[in-house]
Amino acid sequence: MSNLVIDIHTHIIPEHMPDWASKFGYGSFIRLEHHKPCCARMMQGDKFFREIEDNCWSGDRRVEQCDHHGVHVQVLSTIPVMFSYWAKPADCLQVSQFLNDHIGEVVSRHPKRFVGLGTIPLQDTDMAIAELERCVKELGFVGVQIGSNVNTPEGTEFNLNEERLFPFYEAAERLGAAIFVHPWNMMGQEKMQKYWLPWLVGMPAETSRAICSMIFGGVFEKFPKLRVAFAHGGGSFPFTIGRIEHGFDSRPDLVAIDNNITPRNYLGKFWFDSLVHDKMALKYLVELAGANRVALGSDYPFPLGEDIPGTLIKDAGFDLATQQQLLSGSALEWMGVEAKRFV
Amino acid sequence: MSNLVIDIHTHIIPEHMPDWASKFGYGSFIRLEHHKPCCARMMQGDKFFREIEDNCWSGDRRVEQCDHHGVHVQVLSTIPVMFSYWAKPADCLQVSQFLNDHIGEVVSRHPKRFVGLGTIPLQDTDMAIAELERCVKELGFVGVQIGSNVNTPEGTEFNLNEERLFPFYEAAERLGAAIFVHPWNMMGQEKMQKYWLPWLVGMPAETSRAICSMIFGGVFEKFPKLRVAFAHGGGSFPFTIGRIEHGFDSRPDLVAIDNNITPRNYLGKFWFDSLVHDKMALKYLVELAGANRVALGSDYPFPLGEDIPGTLIKDAGFDLATQQQLLSGSALEWMGVEAKRFV
Repeated sequence: MSNLVIDIHTHIIPEHMPDWASKFGYGSFIRLEHHKPCCARMMQGDKFFREIEDNCWSGDRRVEQCDHHGVHVQVLSTIPVMFSYWAKPADCLQVSQFLNDHIGEVVSRHPKRFVGLGTIPLQDTDMAIAELERCVKELGFVGVQIGSNVNTPEGTEFNLNEERLFPFYEAAERLGAAIFVHPWNMMGQEKMQKYWLPWLVGMPAETSRAICSMIFGGVFEKFPKLRVAFAHGGGSFPFTIGRIEHGFDSRPDLVAIDNNITPRNYLGKFWFDSLVHDKMALKYLVELAGANRVALGSDYPFPLGEDIPGTLIKDAGFDLATQQQLLSGSALEWMGVEAKRFV
Repeated sequence: MSNLVIDIHTHIIPEHMPDWASKFGYGSFIRLEHHKPCCARMMQGDKFFREIEDNCWSGDRRVEQCDHHGVHVQVLSTIPVMFSYWAKPADCLQVSQFLNDHIGEVVSRHPKRFVGLGTIPLQDTDMAIAELERCVKELGFVGVQIGSNVNTPEGTEFNLNEERLFPFYEAAERLGAAIFVHPWNMMGQEKMQKYWLPWLVGMPAETSRAICSMIFGGVFEKFPKLRVAFAHGGGSFPFTIGRIEHGFDSRPDLVAIDNNITPRNYLGKFWFDSLVHDKMALKYLVELAGANRVALGSDYPFPLGEDIPGTLIKDAGFDLATQQQLLSGSALEWMGVEAKRFV
């Protein structure tokens, strides 16, 4: 086994973007205000969203920090607020293509240090599949990142069990594309604005919503070769698996309506990143899912992420083989690539 | 240490209730349709909410099942859908008094088998305190059950950190009243109707919302003698403590605004029930909080509960002293009563 360190959960955004809202004539698309060197403010319409630094867009800066942190490979994905599923599909496709082309460019300049995950207009399955194909076949990405739920231009919202997504899952399976599911558009955020609770409570719930929706919707049954990873150690799912399983057992009339196989059966069939910020929680996760289904993820370069990616895995007291599995073995299997690509 | 088995999480409702909606002239208050012997349908306006059986109202029937299950004492609380915080305070008070009087009656008929928790109109702090006092002083209850959030007649919703609740916390502390926090009015329920997700995903998130709100709002600092227990093993909180702590550490400007003490400091200062339906999760919880802060709770008599209360604790591989702590020692300390009350 190699000594690679691969971080499957990192975010990137282009330094300069068109003013999408002006271009399309509507919407609170994200724009960047470069108010001082090396920094920018992400603005959602006129609302401040987040302050970012140049490690959020510069491949060179990221390689520098990776070298410092001992990370060999970053898997790059956009920032979920960029998904823009709420926009008109053709506009979202254009935004997605712009973001994906930027990721493609960063990867092509450092092909041994970066791997790409695309973003796709999930509100329109056909367009999503077309862009998925382009990401895999033209840009050489290993897959795509998607949100824990999909909102639409019509103002509705749907979950990852919806049949309209099945052709997308089918295409991902056919293309061998990995899927990274990231929480976003958090349930309850309007009810708990204080204390950063949409991030601390809403996001873990979103990830469980996504996992449960895919399990109960039969997605893993219908597309058994799908390789799906969930962010933040699966959020609230791993600790509540007993409740989820007991719900399935005790009220099949409500829960087992689309898939009659127990949720516990799917442990070991999808991946989690390692981002739980707690040794005991990481050990629990590894025992639950298997070391080969937990992969280093840091949420680089954001403050809720792991400051020095891999530290928790290295400090948690695993044997060396398990450590290495978590630091890259699981990532390689999830991505479907071999270590030699990076050496 | 005694060999008592005390179940801190059980629900009860009177067999017959006034038709509150007709009486008050508005609202979807719960009413019961006794459509066949020993059974009833809980109706929310014209909407079916839940089918229940006579073990949901009959003290005698419950004692019979407790004997069968080896449970010595049940802590009785209403079904959260009865909270009625959305109603006019005076009406909610009347409903609460009716429910509390029923619990008081059941307890008085079996004083060694039942303990009462009242319900109070939290949308009006003064009335809530008055009813809390009546519950403790007149009905002999050990405390009250409250929701993970409070909605109001004005259509707003507030969390358990709100200053308006401080006089209630102060009163509970002064009266030595235990507080049981139960998830309800689940975030995101309108977005995930399928697969019982409001119960399987929303409820665990609600409990974390409640715990985080009380911690970050400084409730445990301001009222250090409060004895608070949270349902369902704390929902999503225990596994996400690392994320919550890291959020506090990395963005104090957002999280540490009302209390600058790390959330981890509060582990061991409040209680969890044991209802996680999974041995590994229960062991994780006990390691995190300490055995003296985890108490048997079964959600009797509902299907998402533990069929035979105490089975998970007995089967999880704890030593006998720890088992006994979980089966009753922690409950006694949380309630602030001695074992001899029940023998």
